[in-house]
Amino acid sequence: MKVLKNAWYAATWSHDLDDEPLSRTFHEQPVVIYRGEGGKPIALYDACPHRFAPLSLGRVQGDRIKCGYHGLEFDRKGHCVLNPHGKGVIASALNVRSYPLAERYGMIWIWMGDPDRADEDKLPSLPILEDADFTWVHGRTFVNAHYELVIDNLLDLSHVEFLHPFLASDGNSSRTVFRAEQVGDRVNSYYDVRNEPITALFRLLWEGDEVEADLHAYMYWSAPSYLYLDTGMSAPGEDPSKAPRVPGIHLLTPETENSTHYFWAMGRNRLRDNVEISEMIREGTRNAFEHEDEPMICAVRSRMSSNDLFANKPALLPIDEGNVRARRVLSRLILEEEGNMARQAKV
Amino acid sequence: MKVLKNAWYAATWSHDLDDEPLSRTFHEQPVVIYRGEGGKPIALYDACPHRFAPLSLGRVQGDRIKCGYHGLEFDRKGHCVLNPHGKGVIASALNVRSYPLAERYGMIWIWMGDPDRADEDKLPSLPILEDADFTWVHGRTFVNAHYELVIDNLLDLSHVEFLHPFLASDGNSSRTVFRAEQVGDRVNSYYDVRNEPITALFRLLWEGDEVEADLHAYMYWSAPSYLYLDTGMSAPGEDPSKAPRVPGIHLLTPETENSTHYFWAMGRNRLRDNVEISEMIREGTRNAFEHEDEPMICAVRSRMSSNDLFANKPALLPIDEGNVRARRVLSRLILEEEGNMARQAKV
Amino acid sequence: MKVLKNAWYAATWSHDLDDEPLSRTFHEQPVVIYRGEGGKPIALYDACPHRFAPLSLGRVQGDRIKCGYHGLEFDRKGHCVLNPHGKGVIASALNVRSYPLAERYGMIWIWMGDPDRADEDKLPSLPILEDADFTWVHGRTFVNAHYELVIDNLLDLSHVEFLHPFLASDGNSSRTVFRAEQVGDRVNSYYDVRNEPITALFRLLWEGDEVEADLHAYMYWSAPSYLYLDTGMSAPGEDPSKAPRVPGIHLLTPETENSTHYFWAMGRNRLRDNVEISEMIREGTRNAFEHEDEPMICAVRSRMSSNDLFANKPALLPIDEGNVRARRVLSRLILEEEGNMARQAKV
Repeated sequence: MKVLKNAWYAATWSHDLDDEPLSRTFHEQPVVIYRGEGGKPIALYDACPHRFAPLSLGRVQGDRIKCGYHGLEFDRKGHCVLNPHGKGVIASALNVRSYPLAERYGMIWIWMGDPDRADEDKLPSLPILEDADFTWVHGRTFVNAHYELVIDNLLDLSHVEFLHPFLASDGNSSRTVFRAEQVGDRVNSYYDVRNEPITALFRLLWEGDEVEADLHAYMYWSAPSYLYLDTGMSAPGEDPSKAPRVPGIHLLTPETENSTHYFWAMGRNRLRDNVEISEMIREGTRNAFEHEDEPMICAVRSRMSSNDLFANKPALLPIDEGNVRARRVLSRLILEEEGNMARQAKV
Repeated sequence: MKVLKNAWYAATWSHDLDDEPLSRTFHEQPVVIYRGEGGKPIALYDACPHRFAPLSLGRVQGDRIKCGYHGLEFDRKGHCVLNPHGKGVIASALNVRSYPLAERYGMIWIWMGDPDRADEDKLPSLPILEDADFTWVHGRTFVNAHYELVIDNLLDLSHVEFLHPFLASDGNSSRTVFRAEQVGDRVNSYYDVRNEPITALFRLLWEGDEVEADLHAYMYWSAPSYLYLDTGMSAPGEDPSKAPRVPGIHLLTPETENSTHYFWAMGRNRLRDNVEISEMIREGTRNAFEHEDEPMICAVRSRMSSNDLFANKPALLPIDEGNVRARRVLSRLILEEEGNMARQAKV
Repeated sequence: MKVLKNAWYAATWSHDLDDEPLSRTFHEQPVVIYRGEGGKPIALYDACPHRFAPLSLGRVQGDRIKCGYHGLEFDRKGHCVLNPHGKGVIASALNVRSYPLAERYGMIWIWMGDPDRADEDKLPSLPILEDADFTWVHGRTFVNAHYELVIDNLLDLSHVEFLHPFLASDGNSSRTVFRAEQVGDRVNSYYDVRNEPITALFRLLWEGDEVEADLHAYMYWSAPSYLYLDTGMSAPGEDPSKAPRVPGIHLLTPETENSTHYFWAMGRNRLRDNVEISEMIREGTRNAFEHEDEPMICAVRSRMSSNDLFANKPALLPIDEGNVRARRVLSRLILEEEGNMARQAKV
């Protein structure tokens, strides 16, 4: 599938991985992930080179994974290190592809492109996930549609009033001042509203007796599919960075042309030890993504003839500026990468 | 799909439509139908021109339907009349196709072809549905096969003895005199049997003490897919038009190349106020269509390599005369229509 | 699909067939099988030539099967012998293909190729199924994959230690002496181990107090898809043919390019009247095939780009010698058959 190859993609939240092999598909390639010795994560192509049995059906032993069909064993680099049959000859063709991994911000990141170009400096910068002022809940869901439709959804928050009644008040769209900007290859969408009724979400965290406050929601996208939402409400004159905030992280990893792994985290700087609030935010977010966004995104896809948005001739509006810019940046980066690979192939 | 475009098709029984948006696919096009102000039915292409969200996921407000994704509103003509964001600019590309509708005989009819040619005079003539001498029950089912296979089934009632034991007596086929005729573009199949055991269906309505009577079943087809069955049993010498009759209406609307909306109505001129008999006829008809005809039609389709009956080289019998004629008429009308459109496109 | 046509294929165990029509697909062709007069099995193409209704939805009357849609009746040769409508004319096009059958070893075999070449002498020789020294249990399962992947599985028993813990002891593979040979168009895989812990299966049948014994497992394949497994354990110095043996018969019939009928039988020469042991072997075998082999074979297929093993570039090992030879023999026989048919078509 058409995708930016040389980039880090979210593979699994760290706390969801142990020494049980985890089978996941990224960019239409099956991958097995597990923790080896010392807990270090390992990712291999999920098919034994002998007869193509998924290695994820086998067993992890230290750094090794043992195929469940004929017992061949592979190390963290994908080298076959044991053939249990007869004289145990190991041909070099018995190696399997391994993938560079990085573990940061509680996430395990995978590099599906050229391993020689894997560089932890290219990880997205998400320090807020480790900011001591915030408590986070994490989740994972699955969207049965192309990942760019999910980016469209996130970079265009004008849908919130209509799709997520819990998160916006009636008429919010008409009161909102919207602005999108592109800074290099990054795209930001800014939504500001003054004197907005405090939403049901912020009501949970609100301590004063105001009924209205200023709302901001700033969504930051960088390629290929990292999104950070800075949102909060502040009483007039209050410093927004000190007022109640509910930042969000959205990481999308293409599974296939028509499906997406969606990892999310929601933070807050109020009532941070309240386990009930954590649970409400977790369930509310899951509900919004799984019962409001996901069905709508899939319904949208059902009306499109292909994943190429522009080929479907949408009637674009000013609210689309952010997501249209992001689609153009991403297309350009993919084309550039293809061009680079073609040039390298010539040399 | 290959279908006669400039014709009225049954869309929904009137009593099944209110101001909740109804999503249905006709001729492979998604359509949303709802009642606007004064109960007048409205049909629009079921995808917002902005980002393709199905309008049927939105809400009806008077004549308008409001998209559930970004809140755009459309009127009964498909014109966008409200953009709730920012300055609310409405570009002309924001219009969506609307479809001509007609409401007659308790049915809402849709015109999927050229709107300028929509003409209520072209509605089928089904006055018996409003005849004061008959009580009717109505139903709707769904066939997972091309609509012409359903026409084949209905224009060839010789299957009744074998597939519907409730509706015919053993050996009925050998006693039946069958005749098909084509009158212009209409096709009729006539089945007559003298001194036939009164069938289980007519036994429900029979008041005399005869055990045999004359049975007639006359099926009238007109393009594209309207069928009217005049059936009854009469004691020897009795006027068949006064004797017990159970007329039927069958209206087929292609959903896709391999699926069909099937609307039916069954009338009777005896025991007209008997609610139990109504219920028995409703359930018996539903059972025959859903558990006898539909599975057989789908099984037939599973053995064909395409929906083109003749390409499958059937071994035709005299009983096929009606449905073969109807297939030929329909093919010719579709070809003529395509020819006309090609000519118009040239001009 | 690409398959050896002129050969007998297992269609159904004899005890699973009576006068109820059985619908099965072989080589992508729908076939109806039933027992006619005197219990003789009959197989016809499972579609009425008139309108393609599956004959298996009809009823058997003596040697005849009566179509459930319009009542046409066909005899054991597929000749239409009754048209119940009007004058009952029967055109010659009303005949349906019939298939040669043979009944032997408790199995009904079908010949999908040229009927003139059907010859019972070409049935596989499986006398052990009728050997008075053995008690058998029979079964049938279904594999959602190409039949050659099942042959691969059976001709390479080196997987047993890893996939079937009930059938082999830890480390068995490293102790096994393996040899494959091709004798004409037959392929045999031989596995021998000395002083092997008695496996759980043989423990059921063991009467002595040994804890170790010699194990042999000899798999014999002949084209297209007949496999006979001679396996047993014998105390040192004991005649293996007299020691506990659990022979197996595996008969594979391609349903489609991606699915296989799998008929199996397991015999034993010990505790032959013990019904509990029969039940344990039946359930153990079913469990191994349905919950261990079948999911693994399907998982393997999910990682292949086509059913052509060699196009997927497997990293072959010495343990693959038997199944690679069998694949080559089968490919050659299919090519020869295609060549013969092309030559005959020219003449």
